[in-house]
Amino acid sequence: MVASEQAESGSTGGGRRAARGGGRAARQAARASAGKTAPAYITRQIGYFDLLNEETLDLIERNADTVLEEIGLDFRGDEEVLQMWRDQGCDVRGERVHFPKGLCKKLIQDTAPSLITQHARNPERTVKMGEGNTVLVPAYGPPFVRDLDKGRRYGTIEDFRNFVKLAYMSTGLHHSGGTLCEPVDVPVNKRHLDMVYSHMRWSDKPFMGSVTAPERAQDTVDMCKILFGADFVDQNCVVINLINANSPMVWDDTMLGALKVYARNNQATVISPFILSGAMSPVTIIGTLTQLYAEALAGMALTQVCRPGAPVVFGTFASSISMQSGAPTFGTPEPSLVLYGAAQLARRLGVPFRSGGGFTASKIADAQAAYESANTLQTAALGGVNFMLHTAGWLEGGLSMGYEKFVMDADQASMLGRLLNGPDLSENGQAMDAIREVGPGMHYLGCAHTQRNFETAFYRSPLADNNSYEQWEAEGSLDMNQRANAYWKKLLREYEAPAIDPAVDEALLAFIEQRKSSMPDAAY
Amino acid sequence: MVASEQAESGSTGGGRRAARGGGRAARQAARASAGKTAPAYITRQIGYFDLLNEETLDLIERNADTVLEEIGLDFRGDEEVLQMWRDQGCDVRGERVHFPKGLCKKLIQDTAPSLITQHARNPERTVKMGEGNTVLVPAYGPPFVRDLDKGRRYGTIEDFRNFVKLAYMSTGLHHSGGTLCEPVDVPVNKRHLDMVYSHMRWSDKPFMGSVTAPERAQDTVDMCKILFGADFVDQNCVVINLINANSPMVWDDTMLGALKVYARNNQATVISPFILSGAMSPVTIIGTLTQLYAEALAGMALTQVCRPGAPVVFGTFASSISMQSGAPTFGTPEPSLVLYGAAQLARRLGVPFRSGGGFTASKIADAQAAYESANTLQTAALGGVNFMLHTAGWLEGGLSMGYEKFVMDADQASMLGRLLNGPDLSENGQAMDAIREVGPGMHYLGCAHTQRNFETAFYRSPLADNNSYEQWEAEGSLDMNQRANAYWKKLLREYEAPAIDPAVDEALLAFIEQRKSSMPDAAY
Repeated sequence: MVASEQAESGSTGGGRRAARGGGRAARQAARASAGKTAPAYITRQIGYFDLLNEETLDLIERNADTVLEEIGLDFRGDEEVLQMWRDQGCDVRGERVHFPKGLCKKLIQDTAPSLITQHARNPERTVKMGEGNTVLVPAYGPPFVRDLDKGRRYGTIEDFRNFVKLAYMSTGLHHSGGTLCEPVDVPVNKRHLDMVYSHMRWSDKPFMGSVTAPERAQDTVDMCKILFGADFVDQNCVVINLINANSPMVWDDTMLGALKVYARNNQATVISPFILSGAMSPVTIIGTLTQLYAEALAGMALTQVCRPGAPVVFGTFASSISMQSGAPTFGTPEPSLVLYGAAQLARRLGVPFRSGGGFTASKIADAQAAYESANTLQTAALGGVNFMLHTAGWLEGGLSMGYEKFVMDADQASMLGRLLNGPDLSENGQAMDAIREVGPGMHYLGCAHTQRNFETAFYRSPLADNNSYEQWEAEGSLDMNQRANAYWKKLLREYEAPAIDPAVDEALLAFIEQRKSSMPDAAY
Repeated sequence: MVASEQAESGSTGGGRRAARGGGRAARQAARASAGKTAPAYITRQIGYFDLLNEETLDLIERNADTVLEEIGLDFRGDEEVLQMWRDQGCDVRGERVHFPKGLCKKLIQDTAPSLITQHARNPERTVKMGEGNTVLVPAYGPPFVRDLDKGRRYGTIEDFRNFVKLAYMSTGLHHSGGTLCEPVDVPVNKRHLDMVYSHMRWSDKPFMGSVTAPERAQDTVDMCKILFGADFVDQNCVVINLINANSPMVWDDTMLGALKVYARNNQATVISPFILSGAMSPVTIIGTLTQLYAEALAGMALTQVCRPGAPVVFGTFASSISMQSGAPTFGTPEPSLVLYGAAQLARRLGVPFRSGGGFTASKIADAQAAYESANTLQTAALGGVNFMLHTAGWLEGGLSMGYEKFVMDADQASMLGRLLNGPDLSENGQAMDAIREVGPGMHYLGCAHTQRNFETAFYRSPLADNNSYEQWEAEGSLDMNQRANAYWKKLLREYEAPAIDPAVDEALLAFIEQRKSSMPDAAY
């Protein structure tokens, strides 16, 4: 059974006092309903925060076109790609590609879908992204993991499996993610097999594939064909993959190789300039937007040259650096402004948008981590991110995946889902009968309208302590980090693996065995 | 000298490494400019997040009018106010006032100003609120204070003075606030004198007055006349005051008494329904908005009956309760949706709006406190709050004022100011020369554009640790709470009181002496 975060909260203190608005029967009803499946993804019911007006968006588009035509982008180490660009009418000088104005935009708008359906092996977990549909995804890529008991250490495949399980059990997260942590106890050239298998076996949510080499991308696709069937994979998106630009204005052969594999197999790519403004882009908002838009346009256009109609997401990871130390900073205002602008550019273009997440430079899950993460999560939600990578677990500028941080961020993810649902405008939502029934000077705790609605009226965090000071003190004066520590352990204790067809499982394991034995261990 | 938070950050670690983008000369320039006075208030350069469409706002207005006419509001213990309503054509039955449809809105829109200028004794600190101008204000009302060294304890007048000083030194806060904490070592009936004096003497930012009794409101006005001159006070707003409704749908005699004093003296009132949804309002967003709008309309209209043109702010404090325990909860999605809607109602009405702040139910400045506070601060900034009470210091549902939390939130306040400034659209902001200069595969750290802009390009937190894991560990593995502890102590050590005319100071002290000796100590 998928444990519900909402259900768990009953045992963290909230149930102790009398439920004034409900009583025992209502509490029982709440528990009974808690096993209900959470929505597979968010269907946005509210608008977007639009930072820029049309004139400014036009300006950025014109400037990006100037960058693409006049300055050009490097596509390094991949002659095939250079020839593809020549065939599209680009001016290619060495590895520098100069694009005719409007070419990339046209290639994308002619064939790239505005809505991507990524299938999960459990059809109830299939997600949509784009056109107001949003998918919240764990953090990606940390070599380290951290928990309160053992501190910071290199990640292992056991840690990786643990985070697959925690993502599976989080109602606020819709996706199993990709490199939840680097399993450094597995050789570099083989670990993608164990990672992809873990997503397939220990969760039934959609997941991400390997991009660190074209043959690892191909392994991912081959494993997907075992899990979903080869014909299904050719006609449907079953895996999504993170393709980073090497900003400023470079696409390298590793990323191009993975991009081609996935696009030609009709699988989704997230084309993401990875930018720390001040180092990889100008120190200004509009300058950064201009460059990242040019980079993303070129990468997205390439997917459509590889296979017209291949699902592609406009991605960006953009933060700032400390101009005093060069260190990356997170949760500050400037990256939020970049995110708002980039989301608008993606909507104009008509493709899904990836950005955001629970970013922080903090080494631990303290107040700094939470301020910075919340600032970015709110921005991503209001700006209109469709694929929110790094939603949960991120610490230390992405170097560490935190167990406690993961469940804290997953709690925030659930709140974002409620926020994007917006208000209920129905007669029940208007609640005029409640206002009439209660009247001046009384209270709403027991009125009929409250009785009807209390169970789902307000978001209920499994980690926040809302009790009195005295009760909090009596329970040991725990901070959120300590409560989160108990919570993720409880989730892992209660985890039950989703069922899988034994024949499929056997075939996956045989494929992995064959691939692993076909090559010696390597550390690159 | 007013210390700048930006300036302080130079000594918290950031300056240690080479400023790759600037070098020694640039660092010196940055230091030299850091003493510059921060803006007295925020002039918004970006749009609002509009949650509701016009039809929904119409619906809420209609429903609120139904509440005002059909259900009515209680005005308790104040016969004068009941007569004022009768004179306006209301149907008054006992203490229940039924308002003709549209009356309150008309009274407000006929005479209430859309923009309020609150004068500070230092004209450079005079603030504007409304029409896109925003003022960030410390937390208000906690009986307890908390710091890392001494834990939680009742507040004293020394604590009160400390928070006046910290607000004075915070570049992100524009206002000295009101009851920064309850100074419980001063008798209840006399502490307003010491509180108002502290604001007047130890800061030169604008401040709030006493509302706990009409004669204390009058004392506040009389002290303002000493500080600003009686004629000036009659024609200008020099103090702003928090008038809470007793939701649902009750205005009580204490608040009505203070309201009348301030409005008749042409001083600003913040008319604020205080709502925990589920207890004091329906459990739904639209139901809560309907009720709080009706309550605020009636209170604001009353100020205009008292003195047409008196400055008035549409306020709301709205959060939810745990439907399991009845405890207030903060930073959750539902109060954010209420805030967005209420801000739109205020803009439609054409008066400044108060809400938001750094709310949390957490007892300490941990991750819970920061997530919850950031969620509310972001919402308040994007929704369009003009007078953001409770921006800094709030802990434990408002029961405690935290020293560490105060400087953490003040840091966030500075970031909100940057966020609302929006992007630079100029040629310098577009940065095309930088993109041309740098080109593919290079970096921006030393380019001419970065050199020109690095000093002000990115917000620089005095509290965030962005250093490497190794450096952070070498410096003692401190969390943000510990860094904040050192920071507020440093601010208090460096505090220098703003100058005041000795004759004015003497007159204020004489007034206080006279008032205090005119009555015995009382605990109410």
